[in-house]
Amino acid sequence: MITIGLDMMGGDFAPLEAVKGASAFMAYNKDEVHLVLIGDEEKINLHLDGNSMNPSTYSIVHAPQVIEMHEHPTKALKEKPQSSIAVGFHLLASGKTDAFISAGNTGAMMVGALFSIKAIEGVLRPTIGGYMPREDGSLGLLVDVGLNADCKPENLNQFAVLGSLFSEHILKIDKPKVGLVNLGEEEGKGNMLAQATYPLLKENTLINFVGNIEGRDILVDKADVMVCDGFTGNVVLKLAESLHDIAIRRNIHDEHFDRFNFEVYGGVPVLGVAKPVIIGHGISHANAFKNMINIACRMMETDLTGKIKESFAVPAE
Amino acid sequence: MITIGLDMMGGDFAPLEAVKGASAFMAYNKDEVHLVLIGDEEKINLHLDGNSMNPSTYSIVHAPQVIEMHEHPTKALKEKPQSSIAVGFHLLASGKTDAFISAGNTGAMMVGALFSIKAIEGVLRPTIGGYMPREDGSLGLLVDVGLNADCKPENLNQFAVLGSLFSEHILKIDKPKVGLVNLGEEEGKGNMLAQATYPLLKENTLINFVGNIEGRDILVDKADVMVCDGFTGNVVLKLAESLHDIAIRRNIHDEHFDRFNFEVYGGVPVLGVAKPVIIGHGISHANAFKNMINIACRMMETDLTGKIKESFAVPAE
Repeated sequence: MITIGLDMMGGDFAPLEAVKGASAFMAYNKDEVHLVLIGDEEKINLHLDGNSMNPSTYSIVHAPQVIEMHEHPTKALKEKPQSSIAVGFHLLASGKTDAFISAGNTGAMMVGALFSIKAIEGVLRPTIGGYMPREDGSLGLLVDVGLNADCKPENLNQFAVLGSLFSEHILKIDKPKVGLVNLGEEEGKGNMLAQATYPLLKENTLINFVGNIEGRDILVDKADVMVCDGFTGNVVLKLAESLHDIAIRRNIHDEHFDRFNFEVYGGVPVLGVAKPVIIGHGISHANAFKNMINIACRMMETDLTGKIKESFAVPAE
Repeated sequence: MITIGLDMMGGDFAPLEAVKGASAFMAYNKDEVHLVLIGDEEKINLHLDGNSMNPSTYSIVHAPQVIEMHEHPTKALKEKPQSSIAVGFHLLASGKTDAFISAGNTGAMMVGALFSIKAIEGVLRPTIGGYMPREDGSLGLLVDVGLNADCKPENLNQFAVLGSLFSEHILKIDKPKVGLVNLGEEEGKGNMLAQATYPLLKENTLINFVGNIEGRDILVDKADVMVCDGFTGNVVLKLAESLHDIAIRRNIHDEHFDRFNFEVYGGVPVLGVAKPVIIGHGISHANAFKNMINIACRMMETDLTGKIKESFAVPAE
């Protein structure tokens, strides 16, 4: 049995879309998952009434407070201990849930992931990846996309390992190719960070390093895991997200540009922390919530956290 | 009379497309421009034969060597003093030309611009901007896009001034809005560089600073001049360039995505050096060469260099 905590108050359409997503997931779930719905009990029940969820498959944990989207993360978590995000992390940290999902305040989710539960031993900085849709329908992973604005070469080297494991086990890409996002293809190119990172990636036996990739390679399948600092990654991710808006505005109907509707992917995991934490997009609808629950399940089923622990374990002398 | 040096050997289709571009420009030029065609005289004449350029409007300076696209810039410039790029910078530095244009080896053009002619007094680091097409047909300017991979806050602050002057006088945007590329909108967000740059931009009376912009804002008109380090800018520029390829591959016909065909813009100027230097794309065709000559003319006519000098002049005590 997998127990997944779901923040019902997070996202622009809470709790209705979260309820709909949970129901949609449960409709084909074969009893191996129990959902813990966290939020305002009255509001949740109001929406649950119209849905056909089997009461034995979920429980509700009342959390009367809500951290709004633009609140200061650390301050809000401190001042709102009864918020759905604070309660969600408390349940996760105390072992009452195995994973936690929220489409709420991204900053609060990051802070919670970093401080409520621990980083896996050996992981210097946990990271957040972003999906990059490719024309063949597969997904590339860009790491980091904003959790670590300033990075050291060792951080990027670890993101490569974390991203590779996620790509292999969750995105099901065999021997994922790792590329270093850079301003030129040749070894030796780059800013100081990229120049110092290249040799680390080259010598890293845990990954399948294919060298530098440029901006033009990000939306094609030159690399499955694309490593960069969280500043560059965040700018690239948000630029990619805006392509879907532009396509809609210009009435372009194209399967590939449709994939830049990041809502469909549900959310991205925080990689390198001791338990699965999934951060969703503020505009998440039912399908996004369903997909996030799916990703959390897959992370549990494949024991991704255990695999990360193995990779970062210091070999015994 | 404006005398413009044009490297005839640069670009994938040299010298034919350079000749065609020069002819196209000269067809409506009213005698105020004299072109100095630099390259292999025999090859240039071969292509000139089929074109109707008035012989009084141009001269040829023979340069028998060519710096190939993938040669090491500094090494190539040193070992090939008779190359079209080396000769082009020599003519520029010695005052025989007023501006220099090449679609050849970008690195060699950068090195030449930095070392053959001087930076304007007060400019710590010259920069290269890249155009960002917007849906209304206008062009935003992203600075830096690769000349300065690692930057200090003072560099970004100067790029803002250089970019604003180019945007105002060459792209004809009144009081161009300057945005700092960042991973969040609020003041205080960012990596260390962006955090330290924000207050400098805010206090800079030479620019119209509008605050932070995110990746999603880059392809819309939230800011006219978008300031970032050359690493991030290079990744963004090349990603934007790849959108045109993707649109073509997917048979998407759209006026806006057509504008991501960066070839049409011709080239980008090196900003902050003492004389106009324009670096073109390797795949430049006739139209690109024509546009680059136009940009160089506009830079001379508006005395952009003089205006930059004024902006960076230390006020007398």
